[in-house]
Amino acid sequence: MKKIVFGLLALSLSLQTQAQESDAETFRRIYSQALSEQQGYEWLRQLCAMGPRFAGSEQANESILYFKAVMDSLGFETRLQAVKVPHWVRGPQERAWLVRGMDQTEMAVTALGGSIATPADGLKAEVVEITSFEALDSLNLEGKIAFFNIKMDPTLISTGYAYGSAVKQRWAGAIEASKRGAIGVVIRSLSSSINKHPHTGSMAYAPDVPKIPAAALSTFDAELLSKQLRNDPNLQLKLKMACEWQDSVYSFNLIADYKGSERPNEIMLVSGHIDSWDLGTGAHDDGAGAMHALESIFLLKQMGFRPKRTIRLVWYMNEEFGLNGARVYAKAAKGDKKEKHVIAIESDGGGFTPKGFSIDAQESMVERVKEYRKLFEPYGIYQFSKGGSGADIGQLKSDDIVLIGLRPDNHRYFEVHHSVLDNINSVNAREFTMGSASLAALLWIMDRDNVCINCID
Amino acid sequence: MKKIVFGLLALSLSLQTQAQESDAETFRRIYSQALSEQQGYEWLRQLCAMGPRFAGSEQANESILYFKAVMDSLGFETRLQAVKVPHWVRGPQERAWLVRGMDQTEMAVTALGGSIATPADGLKAEVVEITSFEALDSLNLEGKIAFFNIKMDPTLISTGYAYGSAVKQRWAGAIEASKRGAIGVVIRSLSSSINKHPHTGSMAYAPDVPKIPAAALSTFDAELLSKQLRNDPNLQLKLKMACEWQDSVYSFNLIADYKGSERPNEIMLVSGHIDSWDLGTGAHDDGAGAMHALESIFLLKQMGFRPKRTIRLVWYMNEEFGLNGARVYAKAAKGDKKEKHVIAIESDGGGFTPKGFSIDAQESMVERVKEYRKLFEPYGIYQFSKGGSGADIGQLKSDDIVLIGLRPDNHRYFEVHHSVLDNINSVNAREFTMGSASLAALLWIMDRDNVCINCID
Repeated sequence: MKKIVFGLLALSLSLQTQAQESDAETFRRIYSQALSEQQGYEWLRQLCAMGPRFAGSEQANESILYFKAVMDSLGFETRLQAVKVPHWVRGPQERAWLVRGMDQTEMAVTALGGSIATPADGLKAEVVEITSFEALDSLNLEGKIAFFNIKMDPTLISTGYAYGSAVKQRWAGAIEASKRGAIGVVIRSLSSSINKHPHTGSMAYAPDVPKIPAAALSTFDAELLSKQLRNDPNLQLKLKMACEWQDSVYSFNLIADYKGSERPNEIMLVSGHIDSWDLGTGAHDDGAGAMHALESIFLLKQMGFRPKRTIRLVWYMNEEFGLNGARVYAKAAKGDKKEKHVIAIESDGGGFTPKGFSIDAQESMVERVKEYRKLFEPYGIYQFSKGGSGADIGQLKSDDIVLIGLRPDNHRYFEVHHSVLDNINSVNAREFTMGSASLAALLWIMDRDNVCINCID
Repeated sequence: MKKIVFGLLALSLSLQTQAQESDAETFRRIYSQALSEQQGYEWLRQLCAMGPRFAGSEQANESILYFKAVMDSLGFETRLQAVKVPHWVRGPQERAWLVRGMDQTEMAVTALGGSIATPADGLKAEVVEITSFEALDSLNLEGKIAFFNIKMDPTLISTGYAYGSAVKQRWAGAIEASKRGAIGVVIRSLSSSINKHPHTGSMAYAPDVPKIPAAALSTFDAELLSKQLRNDPNLQLKLKMACEWQDSVYSFNLIADYKGSERPNEIMLVSGHIDSWDLGTGAHDDGAGAMHALESIFLLKQMGFRPKRTIRLVWYMNEEFGLNGARVYAKAAKGDKKEKHVIAIESDGGGFTPKGFSIDAQESMVERVKEYRKLFEPYGIYQFSKGGSGADIGQLKSDDIVLIGLRPDNHRYFEVHHSVLDNINSVNAREFTMGSASLAALLWIMDRDNVCINCID
């Protein structure tokens, strides 16, 4: 029989180092400590200095081993969890040209993750512009390069929704175009601004549908191409990419436990994914989330808040290209009868000013978490909504876990996401640090108040 | 006898082009229109391309004349209001060196606005570090350069408060140091981050206290100087600045009216200041605010919302260095018996994601404006507080005006404020545009609902 336990142990003082301190004062101390030291941002700077962390790359593994040592030195119990990941390599060059007879104009292009290469001397064909999936059936793509030019809707306040409604061209574009005879596909980069930096991301092929090379044009070049096609529908595009699939390799999830004093087998998970795309250094996606998780447990330990339950950091491997780490972790967690995951928190929305939390749990728990809103409001955190949490922790979903996603401001997110622009210069230290403090405060109070479903007690 | 009029004409349809549309739908249309076109950001780009707009400079006046023509072309009734402004000129060079015998290390420095020059061959003296005003009386500053090194408190969530608590070193530092015999003063730049870009801002002298040169070191150099002084208290600082005061000159406020259809003599003012400091191009301070005001009335006109009251844009001249424009405008407004100012809105917190409004008015009106919160929440605007509004519109304060300040996120603001970093690259188009739409929505609904005190009706 399920039961909901919360509030029963509200007077427990195991995490309350200063018995006289109000919750608001404890929150204030946590945020002050975070903003004074900004240790997480310094770690993020170090992480980004190591280069991109694409799953399967050496840097991805090296960054994990480096930070495992950091977490060891901080006194957390760390371990690696083996994760087999696909290994796709961009290769030495990727170029595209708009061709009009002898006249060639180079365009900024990047292979989509998982694409096959073009022939060594390139792929050249006429281009057909596609502005909606509905229009596909009326177009003749035979022997052509399909050009999906579906904009992110600028009128949506959450750029996440705008991304969600436009991303199909990236993952399904090659399949739908190939079915209709296209020999290659280029998409408009999923970016909310116009510039010359293309954005990559995962794409898919389907069984029984010929694989065709797939790339993203920068938004600047997508606009240009669209305009030129209106003047000259016989324009050709030439595409040259040397990307390739290699054998899968082993990588790791990184796990660090801050052991609970009373209920060490009940797990409060806090997480981000450590892999990034290969163009930038994944400062926002998801270096920021990984460091939010680390800084939050660091803050609690540094400030002497010993949790009752075990707070576990997980840095997931390969969120970007198959969720392999999340699947491995979830499978092991579900098979482990000694441990019970009561809460899982994920930060994968970038290192921008946090605005709220989305909570994926039964209604009563959503309401319970919303009761903390007053404590968070002084820190600009007003949005407590029922909804999705995160792709990695979503693998842990069950009836008796509370899943929570940190929701930062996202006006700037998709300008850098999956592109070379996603680097440390795009992350503001204070905005980032507010996220770490918010996770620390949330972990502290949910542990203190025993907010969990069907806990062991 | 005063009376408060609101809500009486809530059914008036003069601004309601689509009678069936809910308020939420109208808000949605306003934000969608703004985010689709982003016209204000394009204007801001043009403004910043003209260079800094320091009061008294040619560029300040040229930018006003350029945008007066823009506003004319949009169909607003524009006029200039003459404003006499002080004219201080930075001069050809400003440099500082840390001197240890023959060894000189150059530091990044900038004259504070209003400072006198150093002697032509510079000013050299030992340095005394001052970390609080309380410590002043225990220090011997005779013949020394005073070094105020008071940090902005990083633990304050609003960087505005942190600025407010540290800014005294800038405006009063020269006076307090000179009183105690100092021959020059340098302050730590008022910046929330550590870098090599110094931040200027206004400073003051007092009658009967000798004027001494005053400058700001970059935060990087302030940290360095502080550290070096601990090792060698006899270090010298050499300062060379050629700034000078020139005769006051005439400049302008720019006023543009969107005439009301029913109550043209009741004024709803929306404003920013058009002058900037001379180091950057004032993209956030206050190019953004000026363009928020322009884009808000442009949006209303473009969408066919004819106001009942006159919506008046004012671009104030010289907020930075004496509030001259605001004083001239307020004096004229108070002397004009035909017009009545019922609302004044100011945006002078930068072009970041808007988070709320602060309302300076009698309590019942504050509560009345707070009733709009539900309509603004989908746009991330949750913070409706009673408090200060803005320096320029503050000059209009009376018992029967509602003063409102737009409150954007300010984590990044003081990193760029008054420095070369305050340029168009530091403004995000979407974040900025949310501010314009917010002002347009607020103007629309307050006019529609007749939210004003003691209106003529």
